[in-house]
Amino acid sequence: MQKAGNTIEVCFSPALFGLFDSKDCIVVVADVLRATSSICVAFEHGAGRIVPVETTEESMAYRNKGFIVAAERKGEMVPGFDLGNSPFSFMSRDLKGKTIALTTTNGTRAIRAAAGSYKVAIGSFLNISALCRWMAGEGKNVICLCAGWKNKFNLEDTLFAGAVVSYLTGKAGFYTECDSALAASHLYEKAKPDLYNFLENSSHRKRLQRLHIEKDIAYCLTPDQTSVIPVLEGDFLVNLNS
Amino acid sequence: MQKAGNTIEVCFSPALFGLFDSKDCIVVVADVLRATSSICVAFEHGAGRIVPVETTEESMAYRNKGFIVAAERKGEMVPGFDLGNSPFSFMSRDLKGKTIALTTTNGTRAIRAAAGSYKVAIGSFLNISALCRWMAGEGKNVICLCAGWKNKFNLEDTLFAGAVVSYLTGKAGFYTECDSALAASHLYEKAKPDLYNFLENSSHRKRLQRLHIEKDIAYCLTPDQTSVIPVLEGDFLVNLNS
Repeated sequence: MQKAGNTIEVCFSPALFGLFDSKDCIVVVADVLRATSSICVAFEHGAGRIVPVETTEESMAYRNKGFIVAAERKGEMVPGFDLGNSPFSFMSRDLKGKTIALTTTNGTRAIRAAAGSYKVAIGSFLNISALCRWMAGEGKNVICLCAGWKNKFNLEDTLFAGAVVSYLTGKAGFYTECDSALAASHLYEKAKPDLYNFLENSSHRKRLQRLHIEKDIAYCLTPDQTSVIPVLEGDFLVNLNS
Repeated sequence: MQKAGNTIEVCFSPALFGLFDSKDCIVVVADVLRATSSICVAFEHGAGRIVPVETTEESMAYRNKGFIVAAERKGEMVPGFDLGNSPFSFMSRDLKGKTIALTTTNGTRAIRAAAGSYKVAIGSFLNISALCRWMAGEGKNVICLCAGWKNKFNLEDTLFAGAVVSYLTGKAGFYTECDSALAASHLYEKAKPDLYNFLENSSHRKRLQRLHIEKDIAYCLTPDQTSVIPVLEGDFLVNLNS
């Protein structure tokens, strides 16, 4: 990884994000199982705007404003909400032009944590190539912020971050001196032949296995299902490509 | 990694240690380049006790009590101190029965962070097998706390943690559902054939390269140079095996 062009760093937890100088960076938030994958699916299916909120109460308050409300806690849809956190639930409704209020355990909080940076983008395997192509042309340093699980490191977001590192340092002339980026890239290269099986022992995978959503996981690990690039504008996520 | 016996977890940063329930655990603190390696060398060469302190001022105050004082900041010995942080400097002095006050950038702070647990032990490649054999017989869960660099993830401490995970889950019947432990173990298995070269691009290695201490690094990555097991007793590190 030669010194040339922009840098790519990886942050393994929202709790560590304060250690990074993100003001002039593009921050890619990843919570690939499943919040940021579902956000990509929602935009692919025509959603207009998505407001990420911290609490289920806050989310419910948006229903009165005509929003579709989506909420997940501990991997399951919260009773009384329109949608949970499964990417398939975002395919089954007519979302054309609709605004969605979304609260998830980890993803939403990570998005909020990154809000002070040059630009916050939403990353998942589903939009990874479109996202990386866009970042390669922006001339900005990049930080991948892994949402993790309650501020702890997780494998699936790290593999996504590693894929971004591999892409940007490979094709786009980025370089890195960030140990987290190097580790993520090593892990991704090892996992790449079969991400699904590599994650077999991971903590979140086990958590989701108990919920019988193997289909969600397989889908969320499939690259390049969409070219949407969700970015934060004020309080709302919008699709840069719409 | 089957469910049986005790668990092993890995914490990548002192800033994340509060997320772990460490009260009844053995916590292994690792700052392998170079604080915890040098601590092992000091005990191997007969040091009686080592007091880890936070600040250079605190360390200097111990000189008046007849302590040998050691301090490193940004990888270099602080002027006016007896010793820095190179393992070789701890070999060159007569330390027999002496008490040392040691302050380092990251290691000391990690030791302090872990102080509320069942037992704090000091880990490095230099004492790894002795340490793991001892932990395998203690019947306690284990957390490896990587000192990192100013609370950021680093590769060298992660490789050490991965080696501990591989040892304990392999020979000692430990199991893990901790993603950090799985990641560390994957990285160690990849790096094992040549740790020195694997770290070539790492941030701290580059930092140390600028200081011309390649010899220190090579030594710190050499397994099983000693069977000391430094543990914290009150404010002091002592050698459990002395």
